[in-house]
Amino acid sequence: MRAINIGILGLGVVGSGTVEIVNRNREEITRRLGCEINVTQGSARSTNKPALEKFDIDITTDSYAVINNPDIDIVAELIGGTTLAKELVLAAIAKGKHVVTANKALIALHGNEIFAAAKAQGVRVAYEASVAGGIPVIKAIREGLTANKIDWLVGIINGTGNFILTEMRDKGRSFEDVLKEAQALGYAEADPTFDVEGIDAAHKLTILGSIAFGIPLNFEKTYTEGISTISTDDVEYAKELGYEIKHLGIARKVDAGIEMRVHPTLVPDKQLIANVNGVMNAVMVMADAVGPTMYYGAGAGSEPTASAVVADIVDVVRYMKTEEVRQVPYLAYQTDALEAQQIVAIDDVQSAYYLRFHAEDKSGVMADITALFAAEDVSIEAVVQKEAVSDVSPILMLTNVVKERAINSLIEKLSALGSITSKVVRIRVEHLQ
Amino acid sequence: MRAINIGILGLGVVGSGTVEIVNRNREEITRRLGCEINVTQGSARSTNKPALEKFDIDITTDSYAVINNPDIDIVAELIGGTTLAKELVLAAIAKGKHVVTANKALIALHGNEIFAAAKAQGVRVAYEASVAGGIPVIKAIREGLTANKIDWLVGIINGTGNFILTEMRDKGRSFEDVLKEAQALGYAEADPTFDVEGIDAAHKLTILGSIAFGIPLNFEKTYTEGISTISTDDVEYAKELGYEIKHLGIARKVDAGIEMRVHPTLVPDKQLIANVNGVMNAVMVMADAVGPTMYYGAGAGSEPTASAVVADIVDVVRYMKTEEVRQVPYLAYQTDALEAQQIVAIDDVQSAYYLRFHAEDKSGVMADITALFAAEDVSIEAVVQKEAVSDVSPILMLTNVVKERAINSLIEKLSALGSITSKVVRIRVEHLQ
Repeated sequence: MRAINIGILGLGVVGSGTVEIVNRNREEITRRLGCEINVTQGSARSTNKPALEKFDIDITTDSYAVINNPDIDIVAELIGGTTLAKELVLAAIAKGKHVVTANKALIALHGNEIFAAAKAQGVRVAYEASVAGGIPVIKAIREGLTANKIDWLVGIINGTGNFILTEMRDKGRSFEDVLKEAQALGYAEADPTFDVEGIDAAHKLTILGSIAFGIPLNFEKTYTEGISTISTDDVEYAKELGYEIKHLGIARKVDAGIEMRVHPTLVPDKQLIANVNGVMNAVMVMADAVGPTMYYGAGAGSEPTASAVVADIVDVVRYMKTEEVRQVPYLAYQTDALEAQQIVAIDDVQSAYYLRFHAEDKSGVMADITALFAAEDVSIEAVVQKEAVSDVSPILMLTNVVKERAINSLIEKLSALGSITSKVVRIRVEHLQ
Repeated sequence: MRAINIGILGLGVVGSGTVEIVNRNREEITRRLGCEINVTQGSARSTNKPALEKFDIDITTDSYAVINNPDIDIVAELIGGTTLAKELVLAAIAKGKHVVTANKALIALHGNEIFAAAKAQGVRVAYEASVAGGIPVIKAIREGLTANKIDWLVGIINGTGNFILTEMRDKGRSFEDVLKEAQALGYAEADPTFDVEGIDAAHKLTILGSIAFGIPLNFEKTYTEGISTISTDDVEYAKELGYEIKHLGIARKVDAGIEMRVHPTLVPDKQLIANVNGVMNAVMVMADAVGPTMYYGAGAGSEPTASAVVADIVDVVRYMKTEEVRQVPYLAYQTDALEAQQIVAIDDVQSAYYLRFHAEDKSGVMADITALFAAEDVSIEAVVQKEAVSDVSPILMLTNVVKERAINSLIEKLSALGSITSKVVRIRVEHLQ
């Protein structure tokens, strides 16, 4: 089957990430899609893009050259902004190209017009990357929750703001102080207004509210309040009361209509979304059949955003093509691309371990135990010896990562020590990093 | 456009939930899909299903009558088990029917054969409901993360087990004690082996591992260890060390192949998935481009599971139909089904509030303040008066839910009180319940 050609408008952070992923994960993507996709052309302010030299891409400064290129099937708009981007997207649609975009402002402000044009031309406009970066939350709401009436959704949909609030809480630092660090780290722009005043979040909320409730995009009616007025005192007091302050976008169906608002919010600390920290994003949706669901991940960054761009490209290819690739494969990969792989025997699995046993509370016991660890080449991450009861102490040990075979052999030897008076309990430990 | 007819095999908990949702949310679903779906026939052990009498469904005790009914487009297998269910699913496929199933054991054990048959017949077999109930996690991995190489995934994919471990931790109760309660509450079966020994989780992990890594379904090679040996001591000790014990399904790509294992696991308590409590499920995926993402929600239950069944039905209809409904609508709802709705003005939004101000530390001040609350009909949820510094006390107040207009009016009056010496800080509170 003919490969699909992608043209990228804007080879900046997300555009370069998209090229990188399409090339690096080519085999993986083709095994899933059943058809190859290539980024063959891109536009940028300068054609000098050393990071992209290793890839076979025609780089031009003229975005219209990409749009008008008859070999390009799908145009990815990754320029940002709403003036040129709108013009280019509408031009691409007029040319009958399918469009993928990561541009939340564009969709929030001009989506109604863009979708009308796309519908008239019979082309797709996909925008998963515009909300919450790499989290497939548009897909989850639009397709996964399609059987539900949605009651409300709330989102931590600006990573910069969440990073600032998390630092204020954890370190008692002021808003201004953390903002400066965020700017130095590249999380926040030189002009941080869009992030900290909630405008960026309002763009995303506008999109989420529309797909949740079936209303046209309504950015100008979304209420927006930033976090620049939040004091360290309030963060601290909220914590004492059992709450976290989060900058939430909230869309809720009420009798009077739809609430659409972005503002700092106290959330009970037992709520999972209250525990979403740092630059991470999350969207929690309450729906009538499924109840609460939540979608968590990186809301920005080159590859996380590009992950969503490429997923959209794959969806568009499935839409464009006939029978052969239209189906999402049963097991994610094309049937003939499934590959049997060795399933690792549990003895060969590597893990850290928690061990617990009771040992006699007398001198030399710990030396015997740790000598066994050394002999089996199992390194110890932590040891806790609890207070002895009737001359027997519970001992907890955390190990580094070793093969299960080694830990089992160690346990056998530990169990043979006369000074260990109980069974050795073994539970695996995963740090998930 | 002709409505699509669904036949349901098994009108038990999930089957009834599916009928209920298709009927209750008919308008919502049609606005999204652009085509009506109806459950027109169902099979059950008894045709006496009072809860379904209000719906126009032909109920039969003969599942083959549903499969052989030429008016049925899609068959939903919601019987469970692997013997009859397999026979019926293969028979439906042979008849050229698309199949939707919630049956994890069926897919984990016989999926390879079923998908081969479906591919030969050119029909869809959709199984979102088989893993993690209503969470669209199959969709997220299979489509949303399609640009990624997946490194590993871990899941809390058995609600019963998670409920038991959560209760053991929160209340220091023993495994046996909580299991009895879970059985009484209907979370656990009379024979709890499938849940607590990890077999149910291993079925689901088998499916997740296959779609993450592109390997055939391999249930018999999945290592399984249950939670029945976990003691309250270990739960407590793990907590002291900064960990939670969770019953995880883990699928990981390593040099030697793929690890597939279900066992109790210590997880650092700072990890979001360590904070997934009670009967809730979550799947965390680590992938090369997007990084970590997590999907959270109800893993079982009538309507959560039916939510996934109906989402699958909608996907299958999109696949079956031509141009008109094949596209997922840009904004989730068919363009002509979008409806402008009132966006509620912020003054009319209802919320709870956190107020903070400084007040003179003298008698009568609190009485004046609370009198103003009463006059504005704002009820007080909590008050904290912090220690006075220079005769001025910080006061924190949490209100019940009121209109923003009322809180603003109250703040105006509070600010006019001579005894309040600072600005009144106001932050909204959402309990997300």
